[in-house]
Amino acid sequence: MVIDFNEMLDAYKRILKIPSMSAKGTGINEAASFLKALLKNMGIKSEIIQTSGNPVVYGEYFTGAPKTLLVYNHYDVQPIDPENEWTHEPFAASEDHGRIYARGAADNKGTLMARIFGIEKALENNELHVNLKFLYEGEEEIGSPNLKEFIVKNKDRFAADDVIMEGSQVGEENRPVIALGVKGLLYVELKSRTGTTDLHSSLAAIAPSPAWNLINALDSVYDNNKVEIPGFYDNITPLSNNDLNILKDYPFNIERMKSSYGLKNFMFDDKERIIKELFTSPTCNIAGIISGYAGEGAKTVLPAEAKAKVDFRLVPDQDPEIIFDSMKDYLRKMGFDLEMNPLGMEYPVRTAPDTELAQKMISSAIKTYGRKPIIMLNSPGTQPMDLFTRELGIKNAVSAIGVGDNISKAHAPDESVSIENFRLAIEHTKNFLSEFQ
Amino acid sequence: MVIDFNEMLDAYKRILKIPSMSAKGTGINEAASFLKALLKNMGIKSEIIQTSGNPVVYGEYFTGAPKTLLVYNHYDVQPIDPENEWTHEPFAASEDHGRIYARGAADNKGTLMARIFGIEKALENNELHVNLKFLYEGEEEIGSPNLKEFIVKNKDRFAADDVIMEGSQVGEENRPVIALGVKGLLYVELKSRTGTTDLHSSLAAIAPSPAWNLINALDSVYDNNKVEIPGFYDNITPLSNNDLNILKDYPFNIERMKSSYGLKNFMFDDKERIIKELFTSPTCNIAGIISGYAGEGAKTVLPAEAKAKVDFRLVPDQDPEIIFDSMKDYLRKMGFDLEMNPLGMEYPVRTAPDTELAQKMISSAIKTYGRKPIIMLNSPGTQPMDLFTRELGIKNAVSAIGVGDNISKAHAPDESVSIENFRLAIEHTKNFLSEFQ
Repeated sequence: MVIDFNEMLDAYKRILKIPSMSAKGTGINEAASFLKALLKNMGIKSEIIQTSGNPVVYGEYFTGAPKTLLVYNHYDVQPIDPENEWTHEPFAASEDHGRIYARGAADNKGTLMARIFGIEKALENNELHVNLKFLYEGEEEIGSPNLKEFIVKNKDRFAADDVIMEGSQVGEENRPVIALGVKGLLYVELKSRTGTTDLHSSLAAIAPSPAWNLINALDSVYDNNKVEIPGFYDNITPLSNNDLNILKDYPFNIERMKSSYGLKNFMFDDKERIIKELFTSPTCNIAGIISGYAGEGAKTVLPAEAKAKVDFRLVPDQDPEIIFDSMKDYLRKMGFDLEMNPLGMEYPVRTAPDTELAQKMISSAIKTYGRKPIIMLNSPGTQPMDLFTRELGIKNAVSAIGVGDNISKAHAPDESVSIENFRLAIEHTKNFLSEFQ
Repeated sequence: MVIDFNEMLDAYKRILKIPSMSAKGTGINEAASFLKALLKNMGIKSEIIQTSGNPVVYGEYFTGAPKTLLVYNHYDVQPIDPENEWTHEPFAASEDHGRIYARGAADNKGTLMARIFGIEKALENNELHVNLKFLYEGEEEIGSPNLKEFIVKNKDRFAADDVIMEGSQVGEENRPVIALGVKGLLYVELKSRTGTTDLHSSLAAIAPSPAWNLINALDSVYDNNKVEIPGFYDNITPLSNNDLNILKDYPFNIERMKSSYGLKNFMFDDKERIIKELFTSPTCNIAGIISGYAGEGAKTVLPAEAKAKVDFRLVPDQDPEIIFDSMKDYLRKMGFDLEMNPLGMEYPVRTAPDTELAQKMISSAIKTYGRKPIIMLNSPGTQPMDLFTRELGIKNAVSAIGVGDNISKAHAPDESVSIENFRLAIEHTKNFLSEFQ
């Protein structure tokens, strides 16, 4: 099968017309079947594998090369509400001023399809020097509830040396973004409960306060911009010179970002410091805290319960399990009587800039886009890359070759992708594969 | 006018039938007129004085004695919702098994009327040795929004040496409660705002966190059960031997109170310590705190705002204004950028147990009830007694001669008063006046 760009665009529109909203349960099997057939038509062995949730589309193409690359994408999309705010039908895939409008155009069907066609071109030119495996998930937009179980059950099938994750986009100045990893996450819910009911606050003289218990405990965890949990900073990998150079190159306009985030100030004035902290510092954030009366005016109540949600973003090689245990021990030893539940744990991933995967992703981006990519040592946020690196033992992972840009509105009405970016992502995939081995 | 107990009971029922709910604006003028006429019939000069809100009923009776006693009560009552939970009509004042059921029976018309009839009896027996002034307010149940302004405007009219406040009741073992004062209050709302909108929590590496700002500030205010505001404990009056004896006599059953409050534990195991803290320690309580996401599951958000409400209960002679200023200075010097608003300030009051007012209230209680009263150095809660002691310069204040008991359900459906307690309160008033000079 050899097809031209218009046919690629047409196939892209066809999958966009399938309303594969995992939250609604619509179009799931249709999208999976579409992908299975598409791979098969390219000569790629493909199958639909049932999971405890929506099916996974699996594909594999063996060249006999020593290295295997796993390509991860998802075929499910976000729901379309608020539906009446769409000016283009969400599942019509209509073209307008050089863009294609549809739910999932950017997140993640555009990237998925561009990669497929880039691979097809590489195959056509005999420029594929690795084995390929494909994992197309159908539950990413509802939090991938069954992915870990599925991957663990199918370790051998998904064994690979490197992985290209979903995510990434075309950023400022039309420079493609390459993220060499992700920060990890430890999300902890803390709860203090001292009684069965709120009391009159005059009893604060003799009744324990869950709110103070929680606040004093939290202050013991983080104060003066420093996490006080023993060992928290111990396993942080020092930055290499390559890492430092990548940080230096990162574009960041302080005034523009301040206004875009609605902030009066960042924590630091110095641009280099801001970039370094953003990508390489772990965080300890209060995502939420609640206790007692928070309405208008003065109510004098001694609350029976206080709750907080704390999220830590972790950098290599901090370990969320070890940090959680250490936090529990630390607060217990200090005498705080708290319930502590880990609501999320993800390991940080950072692929060294001098690996073949990173190098070739960067050089092929320069070749394709004619400009330097925006490289992130790791994204400041979290993605479950550790499923691949820890559960499958994959050595290197990047998020790259995204088709969205800063007006793509992923997850919002009128999601769209520039046709030119779709074309460039195909080229980037092809160029990457021609170099990567 | 000389009337017997049945006539007193009848008059009590008549005022209970007036639905003087300040929150609804019903029956206000009718209740005020009733009281003005009642005083007038007793030969007490009385008038209705307009305020910026509901009228005050003022009365005065001069004996030519050197000392003047002010009697404070309120004629307004709480609303009756939830109305369908009343098994006795709220404004029928029906009798049932020795109790009278009506909204306001305990809070505060019973006490108001019992005092009037006790005074009448004292007059009848020529046993009144002080001048009397009466202040019946009509907005207590909506927070006395106009009382301070009114009192300040009418300082001379209300000048007195001593005051009997509303409040108090018949407590455990049918022992009447006498509170020799109140704790003061400082209620502060703290707000930290760093941006215009909640952000993705990955930005916690570079964007300031209002929640941490607030939590770290609060921890600086209170830690290890100690308030860290400079000077906070400086002006606390040491306890006298009389004070200590009163504390020793206070009945407190730890197990019963634990279960009544729904608490696993008090902050202290020792009964003497519990009583001492309850009445003589200032408190610093988190009445409420809120920031970010507090629902189910894990949401990774960096909140734009965090708010807390802190209430301090103060003991003599802590000054809420000085403490508020000191708190502001302290937190600012530590570098916390917070909005701080005082939502309430009341001064603590404690009348010495060896004053004539306290002594005679106690001895007449023993004579009337045949048992020792339950004496509180001050209530653990707050009442605006400081309006009288600070604005009017009244030296001594007590809350005593209450008619409610522990099943009276003030503010709730089926509020009621035991007829025997109504009778005893009349006797207590009479006996007190016969001794007090």
